[in-house]
Amino acid sequence: MFNLISLKNSLANVEGFFCDGVNVGMRTDNPDQGDVAFIRSDIACDVSAVFTSNKFQAAPLQHYQRYPKDFQTDFILINAKNANAMTGERGIDDINTIFKTLAKKRSVLNPIMSSTGVIGYPLSIEKITSAFEKFDFDAKHADKTAKSIMTTDSFQKELCFKVELENSSSFTIAAICKGAGMINPAMATMLCFIITDANIPKSDMDELLTKSVNQSFNTISVDGDTSTNDSVIMMANRQSQAYDKEAFEVALNRLTKELSQLILRDGEGSNKVVAFEVKGAQSLADAKQASAALSNSLLVKTALFGEDPNWGRIASTIGASGIACDADKLIIKYDNLLIYSKEFPVLDEERESKANVIMKKESFSISCDLGLGDFSFTSYGCDLSYEYVKINADYRT
Amino acid sequence: MFNLISLKNSLANVEGFFCDGVNVGMRTDNPDQGDVAFIRSDIACDVSAVFTSNKFQAAPLQHYQRYPKDFQTDFILINAKNANAMTGERGIDDINTIFKTLAKKRSVLNPIMSSTGVIGYPLSIEKITSAFEKFDFDAKHADKTAKSIMTTDSFQKELCFKVELENSSSFTIAAICKGAGMINPAMATMLCFIITDANIPKSDMDELLTKSVNQSFNTISVDGDTSTNDSVIMMANRQSQAYDKEAFEVALNRLTKELSQLILRDGEGSNKVVAFEVKGAQSLADAKQASAALSNSLLVKTALFGEDPNWGRIASTIGASGIACDADKLIIKYDNLLIYSKEFPVLDEERESKANVIMKKESFSISCDLGLGDFSFTSYGCDLSYEYVKINADYRT
Repeated sequence: MFNLISLKNSLANVEGFFCDGVNVGMRTDNPDQGDVAFIRSDIACDVSAVFTSNKFQAAPLQHYQRYPKDFQTDFILINAKNANAMTGERGIDDINTIFKTLAKKRSVLNPIMSSTGVIGYPLSIEKITSAFEKFDFDAKHADKTAKSIMTTDSFQKELCFKVELENSSSFTIAAICKGAGMINPAMATMLCFIITDANIPKSDMDELLTKSVNQSFNTISVDGDTSTNDSVIMMANRQSQAYDKEAFEVALNRLTKELSQLILRDGEGSNKVVAFEVKGAQSLADAKQASAALSNSLLVKTALFGEDPNWGRIASTIGASGIACDADKLIIKYDNLLIYSKEFPVLDEERESKANVIMKKESFSISCDLGLGDFSFTSYGCDLSYEYVKINADYRT
Repeated sequence: MFNLISLKNSLANVEGFFCDGVNVGMRTDNPDQGDVAFIRSDIACDVSAVFTSNKFQAAPLQHYQRYPKDFQTDFILINAKNANAMTGERGIDDINTIFKTLAKKRSVLNPIMSSTGVIGYPLSIEKITSAFEKFDFDAKHADKTAKSIMTTDSFQKELCFKVELENSSSFTIAAICKGAGMINPAMATMLCFIITDANIPKSDMDELLTKSVNQSFNTISVDGDTSTNDSVIMMANRQSQAYDKEAFEVALNRLTKELSQLILRDGEGSNKVVAFEVKGAQSLADAKQASAALSNSLLVKTALFGEDPNWGRIASTIGASGIACDADKLIIKYDNLLIYSKEFPVLDEERESKANVIMKKESFSISCDLGLGDFSFTSYGCDLSYEYVKINADYRT
């Protein structure tokens, strides 16, 4: 038995961690919102990370992976507005230059960098290092930190759980994340920083983080399309003596699941979140492939925006997804409403009007039972609006 | 040696073929435009077809495939506004009922049906058979026929070539097609009907049609996503004694290539056509996969609409496409302008302003040289505009 208690002010609750975010002039539209942030610990931390599967990993990801396996760190530096991606060896040199400047200011252990923004431009070393004069290194400014890492996000994303164990010991886990480019979820960079004071072994960190990302961020990252910078990084400083693997896993999974849903909710220009559940598949791969195809289909997404219960687009997308399927066995439901089966192929007026009500909801499920096997998978998607096109046509300039 | 002569009035030029299109009340927004059409031959024709790879093939496609292999036909009936897809056995029964009514009016050999429109509703047999009272079966109304098969198309698509051979004999090949849902090209149904009076052997018909579709319609059908109804059907009545395999292949390929480019040009709400050329790939599969990923990427498509020379989205999409690639070897060009290479990663002002000029063109190429091998493939795509979202959010209602 254990209790999860949700706490406000996210990162500030975790013992031994400090954070701040400042504006150094890269985010010009709102000088009150930061563009560079740090998260640091008084004590050396073990660190685990899950990075993008994009072959062109950005410089900060390459920089991280040049540290020895199982290295420890006590400092992450994060910037918005520039991804430091496709910048070659220079991009890595720039990170080293930045950290040399930091080292003159204070001693840090194997510092990590994380970046999000436009691809293909060198970092402004001068602007980023100017943050070192502005940071309050002993602050716990969770709010400023969460705001500093935003790009097209319309709201900040942060969560914290205090986990109380049976023996009345407790630990804390907190995270901030950013991401909103939700049409093709992972293409707009998703960053997530998780910190904990739990007394978690490094092997558990690696195992649980990977599992947790697969059941959260990777269910909205539907087709392997990922940005050059996507990163989930977890630091543990073990300032609390408490740890319980099961409790930690539950807390971590809830944290990542809720944050991933917040990202989807903040989908650029999107108005609704839809769970695409594919069940009755012959294999897990089939279920994943079909649900990813649904959450990625432009015709499905525009039908969601138009609130048109056009199940033909659902069926056609399933049929085109390359998986084993049979029109005679397919059953489509919106929430619990039967939309299509061989026996009831035509949407009568009563069901159509019920479907219209469901489609006006902020979130609902579209379930496709293939009737062929026991495997299922759920991907999450959102609608495609005029606003999405506007945001992405105008972004950068 | 042979000459290709482009003729106006498409289908009307092919000896022994007749066609007409009429409005029977399914297309209510414009009663002057037909919604049912036929193409027929006085003489029995050999017929070849390439159908969608969608697992849920619509009733007309199933109906066709129930004829014996190498059957002959002299009649195609085509309707817009209703795809007769996901209608089960009833959909096929309805086609048989329609053709029984036709048989009372005139004798036809193994008639074929082809449909496009909304999925999941039964055909109106009464409306469609009412066309048999309105058709002029001896007409050569190519224009009306081409217009009758349109759905979201903004213009009709038809072409005809007269092929003059060295011995001064000649044959004619003509086609009409429809299709405009170009974001995910084949999802909005693509239909193409090709007729010829050439004295072509059936084995050449099958071979050349498949090859021709692969180098035309399948280069805009980028990711295997296909509608339930996509069909390319070719009929040959051999009313001309003339035939030359090489000349026929050239004429057929030009016909399908130009028609597929017209479909792309008519992309729903699209303003420009872009050739995504991937070369230097380790395998043909890699080249196809990367170029399809580019032409399908929402972030690329919105950048095209915004006329933003954001090559980062190009690089990121290549990196995420799952193929072998190396940032140090990648070279990106817009037309002949170098946009990215390891040596010139940053777009200076001069090149950026040149890139801006290229991106304002109605058509241009984006070429990615992977520098890893000898394989190349070109897919064609278009931009994503507000208008696309509007068309697809509102379609059906």
